[in-house]
Amino acid sequence: MAQLRKDPITSRWIIVNTENPKRPDEFQVEPHTQSTKVCPFCPGNEAMTPPEILVHGRRSGAKNTSSWLVRVVPNKFPALRIEESTEKAGIGIYEKVGGFGAHEVIIENPDHNKQLADLPLDHVELVFKAFRDRCLDLRKDPRFKYILIFKNYGSSAGASLEHPHSQLIGLPIVPSRVLGEIRGSTSYHEASDRCIYCDIISQERSEKKLTVFENDEFVSLCPFASRFPFENCILPKNHQSSFDAVEDRSLHALAQALKATLVKIKKVLKDPAFNFMIHTIPMYSKEFETYHWHVEIIPQLTRVAGFELGTGFYVNPTPPEMAAEALRCVTIPGL
Amino acid sequence: MAQLRKDPITSRWIIVNTENPKRPDEFQVEPHTQSTKVCPFCPGNEAMTPPEILVHGRRSGAKNTSSWLVRVVPNKFPALRIEESTEKAGIGIYEKVGGFGAHEVIIENPDHNKQLADLPLDHVELVFKAFRDRCLDLRKDPRFKYILIFKNYGSSAGASLEHPHSQLIGLPIVPSRVLGEIRGSTSYHEASDRCIYCDIISQERSEKKLTVFENDEFVSLCPFASRFPFENCILPKNHQSSFDAVEDRSLHALAQALKATLVKIKKVLKDPAFNFMIHTIPMYSKEFETYHWHVEIIPQLTRVAGFELGTGFYVNPTPPEMAAEALRCVTIPGL
Repeated sequence: MAQLRKDPITSRWIIVNTENPKRPDEFQVEPHTQSTKVCPFCPGNEAMTPPEILVHGRRSGAKNTSSWLVRVVPNKFPALRIEESTEKAGIGIYEKVGGFGAHEVIIENPDHNKQLADLPLDHVELVFKAFRDRCLDLRKDPRFKYILIFKNYGSSAGASLEHPHSQLIGLPIVPSRVLGEIRGSTSYHEASDRCIYCDIISQERSEKKLTVFENDEFVSLCPFASRFPFENCILPKNHQSSFDAVEDRSLHALAQALKATLVKIKKVLKDPAFNFMIHTIPMYSKEFETYHWHVEIIPQLTRVAGFELGTGFYVNPTPPEMAAEALRCVTIPGL
Repeated sequence: MAQLRKDPITSRWIIVNTENPKRPDEFQVEPHTQSTKVCPFCPGNEAMTPPEILVHGRRSGAKNTSSWLVRVVPNKFPALRIEESTEKAGIGIYEKVGGFGAHEVIIENPDHNKQLADLPLDHVELVFKAFRDRCLDLRKDPRFKYILIFKNYGSSAGASLEHPHSQLIGLPIVPSRVLGEIRGSTSYHEASDRCIYCDIISQERSEKKLTVFENDEFVSLCPFASRFPFENCILPKNHQSSFDAVEDRSLHALAQALKATLVKIKKVLKDPAFNFMIHTIPMYSKEFETYHWHVEIIPQLTRVAGFELGTGFYVNPTPPEMAAEALRCVTIPGL
């Protein structure tokens, strides 16, 4: 028996296979390849990237030298550029805007072979600090309407370089996915005067079926209407609309929730390719009470095909409560 | 220089690389593999599928025997089932519906190795006739709110069987992608009293930059804000909201437009994996004047990664006018 489920925020439907659910060991995971090319993100090769924007952990030495723990540089092949215009123009029925934007790379650690899941908590915390500090800096430029931080790990998740890194794209337009979440959460707030994300957390507090990990400040869960198998969402337990507003004292708990979730995914699914992205409130938005920032983590285990492209419906072969249970059961010493 | 472009129907934005556009021969196309398993769709193996629903071209012989040209059968591993309930239920904040629906396979021709692009026009016409006739039949069941016809060709487009086939999924819910198109075209119609798709065709009639192929009744073009490189859209030139309403006398021109487009894509991009889907007006919708049915064709040349998943923005490495020109230039004898 299959089941159709509706995401309470975006109203997006999924078909979940509850009859013959696909178990973790039934997914085929692509092996990670090792490139033989010189890595531009490894220490000693700093001259291969554009000059650094931000560094954490450099104890000594000049700029762009090799002693660092986290390093942020402009993307050498940017999708958008800060020098481009934001000019809008119409061509009959169509609209276009100049290619203004920012595209940065956050090199997460000097070791080519250490992924986020392998790093000490203090280091993961430094990575999140770099994410937040870049957002706070770019926020000063009023041309940015949205900043997305995301990670592609593994070639089937779109990564073109192996060295552990995340990316930041600053946009002159608020993206439609985020607008869809704001539309849904605002209409819920208008009806109930409550935040829908807070209500999801509160319902989960009694049901405990979707929870993967939690600490005092954050909860990691598999959403009820997950589009993809083993999809995950990390939310601050107390209402907070903007990722930029995360205080230093909360970065450790956030790093712990992310690391725990990634370690569990790596273990249960045999190190799959994955994407994560941070969804935060757009600049100049007033929906502070309705929007709730979060991290979405999507292991790349299935292919998007004609049905998904045509409908926006997703077919999820693994019920989220089964995925959550498999992930929850993994215990991690020291976390 | 990059450019941001907005789709006039869905308001979805894309980033198009106009500075270093990716040319057709720069895409890596996955080779198609040949399975050694017995094919359930080949003539003689009719007993390997559930009993047929519709057949075109059987000259003699009983049901489920091997003399046919197009054969429609229920999917053996359906995402949804006609026996399931349409019952709705709430779980606190969440909503679910029983797994009611239809999932059929249209086996396009008996020859395992002949794709749509290789078939004579009369045969492609028969395939479209089967598509339309299945829609007309399912329309009688009031539980269906939408019927999607789509095709996955090649494993990177999600095809699990090689034998040329398309699929049909009947849904108890109108999908969000279609709702988005209806929302956009309705608001355009309210403002202008015109169909936005008709206006796109009309603007293209004078500009001729995006056209790939046309005949008296249909036009095939690369949309101005294509999400994917070499994405294509086939539209009836005269306003028509429902694919079901295509008359027998128009099926030949439709088959010609689809075949011409597929042959051009196969030639220019070296036989890539692709998806196509038919977008038509939902059952019981009253937006006859605003909605315009069409076929979307998406060659699978790029990977959807964290940025696309996070924003709904797409990065298209090939400007649609360049893709259209490359496809337009291919001449096909006899078409």
